[in-house]
Amino acid sequence: MNIGILGLGLIGGSLGLDLRSQGYHVLGVSRRESTCERAVALGSVDEASVDISLLAKAEVVFICTPIGLIIPTFKQLIAHLPSNTVITDVGSVKAPIVNAIAPLWANFIGGHPMAGTADSGIEAAMRNLFKNKPYVLTPLASTPTATMTVVEKIVRDLGATLHHCSPEDHDRAVSWISHLPVMVSASLIAACMSETDQNLLQLAQKFASSGFRDTSRVGGGNPELGVMMARYNRTALLNSLQQYRHNLDKLMNLIEQEDWAALEQQLQSNQKARPEFVDGC
Amino acid sequence: MNIGILGLGLIGGSLGLDLRSQGYHVLGVSRRESTCERAVALGSVDEASVDISLLAKAEVVFICTPIGLIIPTFKQLIAHLPSNTVITDVGSVKAPIVNAIAPLWANFIGGHPMAGTADSGIEAAMRNLFKNKPYVLTPLASTPTATMTVVEKIVRDLGATLHHCSPEDHDRAVSWISHLPVMVSASLIAACMSETDQNLLQLAQKFASSGFRDTSRVGGGNPELGVMMARYNRTALLNSLQQYRHNLDKLMNLIEQEDWAALEQQLQSNQKARPEFVDGC
Repeated sequence: MNIGILGLGLIGGSLGLDLRSQGYHVLGVSRRESTCERAVALGSVDEASVDISLLAKAEVVFICTPIGLIIPTFKQLIAHLPSNTVITDVGSVKAPIVNAIAPLWANFIGGHPMAGTADSGIEAAMRNLFKNKPYVLTPLASTPTATMTVVEKIVRDLGATLHHCSPEDHDRAVSWISHLPVMVSASLIAACMSETDQNLLQLAQKFASSGFRDTSRVGGGNPELGVMMARYNRTALLNSLQQYRHNLDKLMNLIEQEDWAALEQQLQSNQKARPEFVDGC
Repeated sequence: MNIGILGLGLIGGSLGLDLRSQGYHVLGVSRRESTCERAVALGSVDEASVDISLLAKAEVVFICTPIGLIIPTFKQLIAHLPSNTVITDVGSVKAPIVNAIAPLWANFIGGHPMAGTADSGIEAAMRNLFKNKPYVLTPLASTPTATMTVVEKIVRDLGATLHHCSPEDHDRAVSWISHLPVMVSASLIAACMSETDQNLLQLAQKFASSGFRDTSRVGGGNPELGVMMARYNRTALLNSLQQYRHNLDKLMNLIEQEDWAALEQQLQSNQKARPEFVDGC
């Protein structure tokens, strides 16, 4: 089977590596000639081109561009494809993408592989990036069963754990566990940097250890990605942030009131709840 | 040199392992006979007893109890010591401890080894726990140079990186990079758990990945330790929390106003600032 990958970065490049090792013939398209050459050299794709029409012979196309480019890229792409080509994307927000694309292309299904590394670009592509990671598909009632089945088969071939939900539920769920942590963590760095006593700021920098390192990691990550999350998942993220602010206020109140019993109870609930999220991830 | 360790948990037990391997003779005291036996068996101490008077022959005593027990334990301890014995502690908050103990014991210096693991107790004790980690000493103007010198020598023997500051500066610095992250992270777990749609909560739990795992780690940790931080460092922590809340509000406003340029600028500042805290930790 010919699979097309449009956008040869970390996700597109890693997809290509695994799909080729599963026996698929992989066609890659990038805006840059140099990326096409690297993708072939690294073994991510069998063929690559800056010309989107290469994908005319693909049976399934994965759109792996940055989220802001998915819809415009899709619009260029479909001029070159027969209507039975299956299209899917890997964007980390689903409702705006699915709502824009599904009415224009029957054989489309939204997807989100929940995998990544701190790095980006074709050079960061790696084998088994998706193995044992969640891969969410967001079909609509109108999505043809055959379209769903073909993408499901590929997701399973990647060794990913397949999940299904509506685009809206996906966006609300990831706002809790992916987009909210970025903003919470970003505010931590911003707060620490606001210390105006330079001596104290330097002490804080010297004393920072694994607790600060882990809590600040996603808030110190790729700024463009953070903006995209906020921009495309704004409503769900604002809802999560408001709830977060409410929980922060409650915690601050307990400390102000010196209600140590209630604070301990809250921290105990957290300790008990966390494994439900992180076990196996 | 005889060194006494009062409290044989992760920190006390690990101190003993390293100090014995440096040739010190280590005397351990624990409230429990079984802990004394394990400490000897594991090689953490040369001798151990539930009787605090064992420490009468120590030249330096490290108080390694949980923070709430440091002051009462110190008061019991000094009944058994000659006045030239050097006393130090390893509590993660310094001003309340130093302010209580220094007036009662001239040869006291507060300390805080910034090292630990997720585990606790003598069984968790390990070699080189302090190696290349910050170890903060908080002398007062009244602290005798000889007292400072003897503890500094031991800290260097542990391979730790020695820092000095006032107890108050220590507490303000750790409120930024250690205690604030715990409360920020705790509020994240509490907010996610507040999702009342069970289907959505389960999706969030299934989709949670490394971003949530890292950002929630310290907020899902030992509840007693979290309460102790808040209790003993309340003023500095509340100040940090208020500043944090202010930064969170600013971020939420940018998202509400859809001011993506300003959001990107903030996230870029964070990305640039974070290495000043975490490089080398």
